[in-house]
Amino acid sequence: MNILAFGEVMLRYTVNDHKMLEQTDDMTVTTVGTGVNLLSSLAHFGYDTSILTVLPDNPIGKKAAADLRKLGISDRKIIYQGHNIGSFFVELGFGPRPQRVTYQDRLSSAFSRSKIEDYDFEKALTGVDIVHICGIALSLTDQTRKAAKKLAQVAQSRNKTVCFDFNYRMSLNSEIDHETMKKRYQEILPYVDIVFGSKRDLTDLLDYQIDDETELYKKFCVEYQINFFAGSRRSIVDGEKYFEGFLFHHDKIYRSSKHKLNIIDRIGSGDAFASGIICGLLEKWTFEDILEFAVANSVLAQASMNDTPIFTKEDVFGYIDSDGSNDLIR
Amino acid sequence: MNILAFGEVMLRYTVNDHKMLEQTDDMTVTTVGTGVNLLSSLAHFGYDTSILTVLPDNPIGKKAAADLRKLGISDRKIIYQGHNIGSFFVELGFGPRPQRVTYQDRLSSAFSRSKIEDYDFEKALTGVDIVHICGIALSLTDQTRKAAKKLAQVAQSRNKTVCFDFNYRMSLNSEIDHETMKKRYQEILPYVDIVFGSKRDLTDLLDYQIDDETELYKKFCVEYQINFFAGSRRSIVDGEKYFEGFLFHHDKIYRSSKHKLNIIDRIGSGDAFASGIICGLLEKWTFEDILEFAVANSVLAQASMNDTPIFTKEDVFGYIDSDGSNDLIR
Amino acid sequence: MNILAFGEVMLRYTVNDHKMLEQTDDMTVTTVGTGVNLLSSLAHFGYDTSILTVLPDNPIGKKAAADLRKLGISDRKIIYQGHNIGSFFVELGFGPRPQRVTYQDRLSSAFSRSKIEDYDFEKALTGVDIVHICGIALSLTDQTRKAAKKLAQVAQSRNKTVCFDFNYRMSLNSEIDHETMKKRYQEILPYVDIVFGSKRDLTDLLDYQIDDETELYKKFCVEYQINFFAGSRRSIVDGEKYFEGFLFHHDKIYRSSKHKLNIIDRIGSGDAFASGIICGLLEKWTFEDILEFAVANSVLAQASMNDTPIFTKEDVFGYIDSDGSNDLIR
Amino acid sequence: MNILAFGEVMLRYTVNDHKMLEQTDDMTVTTVGTGVNLLSSLAHFGYDTSILTVLPDNPIGKKAAADLRKLGISDRKIIYQGHNIGSFFVELGFGPRPQRVTYQDRLSSAFSRSKIEDYDFEKALTGVDIVHICGIALSLTDQTRKAAKKLAQVAQSRNKTVCFDFNYRMSLNSEIDHETMKKRYQEILPYVDIVFGSKRDLTDLLDYQIDDETELYKKFCVEYQINFFAGSRRSIVDGEKYFEGFLFHHDKIYRSSKHKLNIIDRIGSGDAFASGIICGLLEKWTFEDILEFAVANSVLAQASMNDTPIFTKEDVFGYIDSDGSNDLIR
Amino acid sequence: MNILAFGEVMLRYTVNDHKMLEQTDDMTVTTVGTGVNLLSSLAHFGYDTSILTVLPDNPIGKKAAADLRKLGISDRKIIYQGHNIGSFFVELGFGPRPQRVTYQDRLSSAFSRSKIEDYDFEKALTGVDIVHICGIALSLTDQTRKAAKKLAQVAQSRNKTVCFDFNYRMSLNSEIDHETMKKRYQEILPYVDIVFGSKRDLTDLLDYQIDDETELYKKFCVEYQINFFAGSRRSIVDGEKYFEGFLFHHDKIYRSSKHKLNIIDRIGSGDAFASGIICGLLEKWTFEDILEFAVANSVLAQASMNDTPIFTKEDVFGYIDSDGSNDLIR
Amino acid sequence: MNILAFGEVMLRYTVNDHKMLEQTDDMTVTTVGTGVNLLSSLAHFGYDTSILTVLPDNPIGKKAAADLRKLGISDRKIIYQGHNIGSFFVELGFGPRPQRVTYQDRLSSAFSRSKIEDYDFEKALTGVDIVHICGIALSLTDQTRKAAKKLAQVAQSRNKTVCFDFNYRMSLNSEIDHETMKKRYQEILPYVDIVFGSKRDLTDLLDYQIDDETELYKKFCVEYQINFFAGSRRSIVDGEKYFEGFLFHHDKIYRSSKHKLNIIDRIGSGDAFASGIICGLLEKWTFEDILEFAVANSVLAQASMNDTPIFTKEDVFGYIDSDGSNDLIR
Repeated sequence: MNILAFGEVMLRYTVNDHKMLEQTDDMTVTTVGTGVNLLSSLAHFGYDTSILTVLPDNPIGKKAAADLRKLGISDRKIIYQGHNIGSFFVELGFGPRPQRVTYQDRLSSAFSRSKIEDYDFEKALTGVDIVHICGIALSLTDQTRKAAKKLAQVAQSRNKTVCFDFNYRMSLNSEIDHETMKKRYQEILPYVDIVFGSKRDLTDLLDYQIDDETELYKKFCVEYQINFFAGSRRSIVDGEKYFEGFLFHHDKIYRSSKHKLNIIDRIGSGDAFASGIICGLLEKWTFEDILEFAVANSVLAQASMNDTPIFTKEDVFGYIDSDGSNDLIR
Repeated sequence: MNILAFGEVMLRYTVNDHKMLEQTDDMTVTTVGTGVNLLSSLAHFGYDTSILTVLPDNPIGKKAAADLRKLGISDRKIIYQGHNIGSFFVELGFGPRPQRVTYQDRLSSAFSRSKIEDYDFEKALTGVDIVHICGIALSLTDQTRKAAKKLAQVAQSRNKTVCFDFNYRMSLNSEIDHETMKKRYQEILPYVDIVFGSKRDLTDLLDYQIDDETELYKKFCVEYQINFFAGSRRSIVDGEKYFEGFLFHHDKIYRSSKHKLNIIDRIGSGDAFASGIICGLLEKWTFEDILEFAVANSVLAQASMNDTPIFTKEDVFGYIDSDGSNDLIR
Repeated sequence: MNILAFGEVMLRYTVNDHKMLEQTDDMTVTTVGTGVNLLSSLAHFGYDTSILTVLPDNPIGKKAAADLRKLGISDRKIIYQGHNIGSFFVELGFGPRPQRVTYQDRLSSAFSRSKIEDYDFEKALTGVDIVHICGIALSLTDQTRKAAKKLAQVAQSRNKTVCFDFNYRMSLNSEIDHETMKKRYQEILPYVDIVFGSKRDLTDLLDYQIDDETELYKKFCVEYQINFFAGSRRSIVDGEKYFEGFLFHHDKIYRSSKHKLNIIDRIGSGDAFASGIICGLLEKWTFEDILEFAVANSVLAQASMNDTPIFTKEDVFGYIDSDGSNDLIR
Repeated sequence: MNILAFGEVMLRYTVNDHKMLEQTDDMTVTTVGTGVNLLSSLAHFGYDTSILTVLPDNPIGKKAAADLRKLGISDRKIIYQGHNIGSFFVELGFGPRPQRVTYQDRLSSAFSRSKIEDYDFEKALTGVDIVHICGIALSLTDQTRKAAKKLAQVAQSRNKTVCFDFNYRMSLNSEIDHETMKKRYQEILPYVDIVFGSKRDLTDLLDYQIDDETELYKKFCVEYQINFFAGSRRSIVDGEKYFEGFLFHHDKIYRSSKHKLNIIDRIGSGDAFASGIICGLLEKWTFEDILEFAVANSVLAQASMNDTPIFTKEDVFGYIDSDGSNDLIR
Repeated sequence: MNILAFGEVMLRYTVNDHKMLEQTDDMTVTTVGTGVNLLSSLAHFGYDTSILTVLPDNPIGKKAAADLRKLGISDRKIIYQGHNIGSFFVELGFGPRPQRVTYQDRLSSAFSRSKIEDYDFEKALTGVDIVHICGIALSLTDQTRKAAKKLAQVAQSRNKTVCFDFNYRMSLNSEIDHETMKKRYQEILPYVDIVFGSKRDLTDLLDYQIDDETELYKKFCVEYQINFFAGSRRSIVDGEKYFEGFLFHHDKIYRSSKHKLNIIDRIGSGDAFASGIICGLLEKWTFEDILEFAVANSVLAQASMNDTPIFTKEDVFGYIDSDGSNDLIR
Repeated sequence: MNILAFGEVMLRYTVNDHKMLEQTDDMTVTTVGTGVNLLSSLAHFGYDTSILTVLPDNPIGKKAAADLRKLGISDRKIIYQGHNIGSFFVELGFGPRPQRVTYQDRLSSAFSRSKIEDYDFEKALTGVDIVHICGIALSLTDQTRKAAKKLAQVAQSRNKTVCFDFNYRMSLNSEIDHETMKKRYQEILPYVDIVFGSKRDLTDLLDYQIDDETELYKKFCVEYQINFFAGSRRSIVDGEKYFEGFLFHHDKIYRSSKHKLNIIDRIGSGDAFASGIICGLLEKWTFEDILEFAVANSVLAQASMNDTPIFTKEDVFGYIDSDGSNDLIR
């Protein structure tokens, strides 16, 4: 099974030792991104993965490609051109002190400046079974938006399964008006089979006015012929944090149990969940098992450093089997 | 608004990676002290701050001054002479294992060996609105004690607001008898407007024999014409640790709510609280808001590395608004 | 009081910063082992300790010996020959993510390849009061097994107190059949006074078919003339982890209270418990006090980095006196 | 004496431990730039310094400002707006392996996106004696170029001494044609008193066709009424690297002796030289002494980590007095 | 062009910060080996590479595979079985203090314990153009020796180019008698096209008694129908270290110029040279250019950390073009 | 052979990564001192060593004792009392940038505050063959001076060999007048057999007015019945640094050859030389061999991190045999 992701690769600068930016000059740089996180997790589940992206044609681009290979992602389809890569700083949180992310300019990255002609989608899809597209491409530039849509079209026409992640953050789109943004999402959804998102994506971005979740998701899935709609959310009970997920298929919502969180690094939790869902669907497990697996993968990811999940199926099953209470493997 | 602190600047050697002293040779050295902590926090709240202290006239003194500037504290009033700086080692705790502080000699530091003639208090107070004096100066040497008192006197006579922090630790004063110590505090209090301390400072050090807190604080404030008396304390409920503060003004005690602690580094919690109180009084918030702010600043400081708080007002309000449950800012 | 331990010394490679093996190349190497852990703890309690082992005759062997000396263990009885040392990798856990240990070959180590003739047991026992033997020697090679047994015999004949730790892990013995393994343990037990183990060691390894713990331990102790049988175990209540211990003497089981765990590094918890029991027996405390002390030592060890406990009696009593709630010592 | 620099502040990511980008994720981030380097050095020589620049209004901008303060540079004139900061990666070299710099996009930085209206030059110049402008502002954007020129004009009209550093690198200006670039430099030079550059800047950028250095520099200085023209260069003799400088004043070239280099980090060598020249001119030393001082400052800077020189006059004189052969100060 | 290497993959533990083993617990672990080093270099020159080896089927094996991928080596042909991996410690040298390598047992590694039946050589050679075999396989076990020979045979019969590296170190073969060792080498040489070795390999191991190098190499190449014989050596002139190489083809020795060394980490210098030779032969450069390239690659490798060269052709040409005197690339 | 040293134990804070104090907060703390350095080296040469000193009775004192044990020095004779330990900061140099040492107060250390009554010299000398006394004890306090003299007296009367190291640094004795200082040295010399010092110690401190070295040393040795007088010095030839030593015995000066230096950390070079001399005298090598060994030990020490030499005889002979040109041991 061969999975291709399309999207931006970024450098993440993590401030070391739970310190804040003003407290140290020591940072750890890693190569991340929604597609990267998802493929890394799927590669560790045993699938072949490759990324379609643009990296700068300089030592930074090569470093990023080396990191991707290490995560188990093929670098064969990467295009090298331009000079820059997007980046963000991460200050880890601790208890009441929140984790903090500070983005640096994403529009000057080699990916954001790529043109639709830079890509040979037919070739990129050769041998691929599943395509994953991150919604952030819809917010970056006209060209990345068009490339994302075109890829979805071509993939659908070649009978590939197309996954799409809303990944919509209003704060990152302050300069684009609501109707424009909505339209962009509406244009790509017809080519998509599996969607990751939240209730809020449907109500706030797509303007659905249905409160009942089952009805809402049904309407959405019918309208765009979506096969699966899945998402995760966090909640607080008695001061403790919990994580749970849902999967909508046909006219039914399946829900995972709530899992207690102990967070060392929260970023990428949604990507870990999505990887688990895709793996489960590929393995044709029951929806209940798929959801437990996806939530478990995300809970483990949030208890480990960096965005990028690297757990094997065995790791995830080990967590599920011990109910998260095993504290030593030897 | 311009705030001046007088007191000792110290080097803190923190053992890295939650290890104990015998477990590693790797340490992180930072520049701290009651005045430093307070001014750093106030500088990050947007005020002008400067420190009146003595640093050794060598590369260590220059390193300390550079650190102070980085924290946002002006080094213009620092006197450079002598060779030594006080220091202490910190082994971070973890759960049931307590954080441990081991002091090195403070009496040979350039500050402790300074003489009252070394200071030009009039000049140091130029442009200053508020003066903060740390009670530790009363325990070090005759000269630091006299300098502290003289500064309080001059400041009062120039209509500056004088803050004083008891900072009394019996263990650090084992060689000075109770009556002597008590007298030293009694001599400086008449020049002071805002006092940070605890019930125990009044009963054990100053020998007040009143059990009711309101009556006790009232007596104390009336006797020395103290405008505000504030302090913080920690408590344990069902194995969980909590932090709270009080502020006494006129004849009333105002109390904050209890905030749950998740401690990575406890040192400086009182200084963070005091900074919050001073900020709140300067901003003329309600006493309730001042207390919540001060406690929040301290709770955040205890969830971050190092003594020295560097939170902005926005950071503190973010914590208050989310009730400490926000775990990601982007 | 002079304590000798016999057993394997290993290198432990700990992956830094709570990362997993694939996430970093930065590791911390320490010198550990059941005997090392026990002697380090006892040395920090104030006893003279030395280890009887074989280290490679090269820079690694010398590094290990230097580490042992640092822990307070005499290196005078170490034999230097061969080339290799056993080792294992440790990835620390976090919340739901378990700590993971990956062993490297132990059979090619200088210790595993030692022969019984390499040891001069009479000389090694000179001046020694107590001997500790780790059961792992029974699983490694014929020679280490015979050496362990011989040492026990000689020690008993010289009226030394012989301690023995089952340390039986089925997973490490997959290639040796049950009856062989059982027989090995049965052969050494007659020379032993104090045994560390668990109920399961008796039922699963030695095939006792008694369910009642008192009866079970009694039968075992009578059969082999064991003076003390002690062990620890962990449990989960409402999602919280607890640690407790027992000590069987004559016909009675003494049990500690349950202590809440906050684990940073779990390995060596049993050795910390055993050290506490031996210390308590040497000090002739009440069985209740011995158990509280042993459990406290282990709880502190699990809240600190590395296998090897380095707490003083004062540290342990400090924890006991504050009920584990003290979070700052200065 | 109060010195103001105008220019871009950048983050420098140095790969740790002499490794290359593909070899590690560990980096050290520092705050640098031509103006930063120059002011840091001058601040360590005892002058008051401040920087006029734009930093992003987020935690990265605050971190950079904290770093500037630590270096001794006042942050009072910094404008906070926008989101991004320019950056570059540094892989240190070793012997035959060259140091390598990889720039990331500088055009999306808050400084590059600043507009001339963002600056209040009159106010920025209050109390300032000397202004330093880095030529890179001429290559970035129309606005930074205009701001640089306007600042030079206003400064000249207020009788401030204006320093200008060519800092021209063809490789960074591949998209701007020669005549345009030349004209930009020609427009600012009339307002300048002290210029840092090289022979090649005059012949290749300004198209002077004079080979004799004295005649060349004379023509240039007369044409633009330049008071001082200074520069440094490196040479190789018998495989050893050397560094030397010149200073042109009126119609004479003064030259330093050649100093042997031992380079740990080459970047910023020109800024260190320029700082030394400015210091020497301010101190009114002989031209010979000025040049020895400036070259010594640069040689020391190249033997220390990071772009930013932090040597005191005493450090530099110590090097000069010992002819660079002293290897221990205590 | 697709290159396959067969051989042992090892972990290298480098003691950090130029310290010795007794001085620190901080180490950096990397994945190395003759085949790894060679393939990494060739991958960075732009070729497809893959390794045929056995890694343990546990987290260590997975970490090693991730590292290999990062270096640009395909992990598709790796066999996962067994538990152990070979390793060695490296203490970097400095000036007169030599770099020191301490090996740990290589015979218990998953590779050493592999059997010839574990490999499917036909399949491994699919799509491969060039095969590289490291002579160390001849010293490890009967099985690795037979596997190496079998691979050479099959490769030759499939018309692949077979490279072989003597890599003979007497110190690692103290337990195998000379005649046995010699015979092992003699058995594999008939299947080989390109050999890396030294004069001493021919005279001391293979017992050739010819002093003239041309005659010696000629005899050797004729006897085994070797197409190319190449090697490198170091020399000292006036206290400076130099590196040079030779390439023997038909009846002529080609020699590189001597290149000055500045060594930070010497290990892998021969592998870097061999990679350069293979690259040059593939590119069909002149023998002079091939030798300069190979020596330059090795000189750069010795001026960088770790065994494993990661220089691109552009990097190597940059060194050649600047005669090793360029100290900054931007 | 059992060697006892008497003197101050200090903490050394080394700034990491060749940075200066203002450039980083990361430091490495080690336990050093003249006696420590000497004993560490002798312990690594195979002798029994122990130190007679006073360490603070707190976690810092325990850390220092653990470090001493690791170096191979017995901690049995250490007295624990007081609170403080002397310390100094080290910024490593690089090429023209000198290494820099900044001392912190040594007079408040537990050692400096020790009284002569704190020591039981008779007991300390039990089993000891050789005593080493560092001259710094003569500069600290009256009590340490008296203790040093008393120890020398008692040792002489018990027929121990007494070594004494001038270790006189004028800069550390600015407050003691010349005659007083001279007298202190004169008082201890009559009890001493082996002296380490320089020509300048005799001419500048002891006021000998003889220029010819042989005559000078003869006069000195006769006057105080000194058996051996030895010292080392550094010189610069053509910009390269060299190290050499001399040994005076009876009426002859023996001189080593000059050895080229490549310095990473210069401190402790004299102690390494002295250790080599003592070792050589104990081994009764020829004076030529002793000097080569002592100089080689020091050259290696200067090419390694930290004050404290840890080379074995084999290491030193390896350097001598290869003339310092061996760059790899495996």
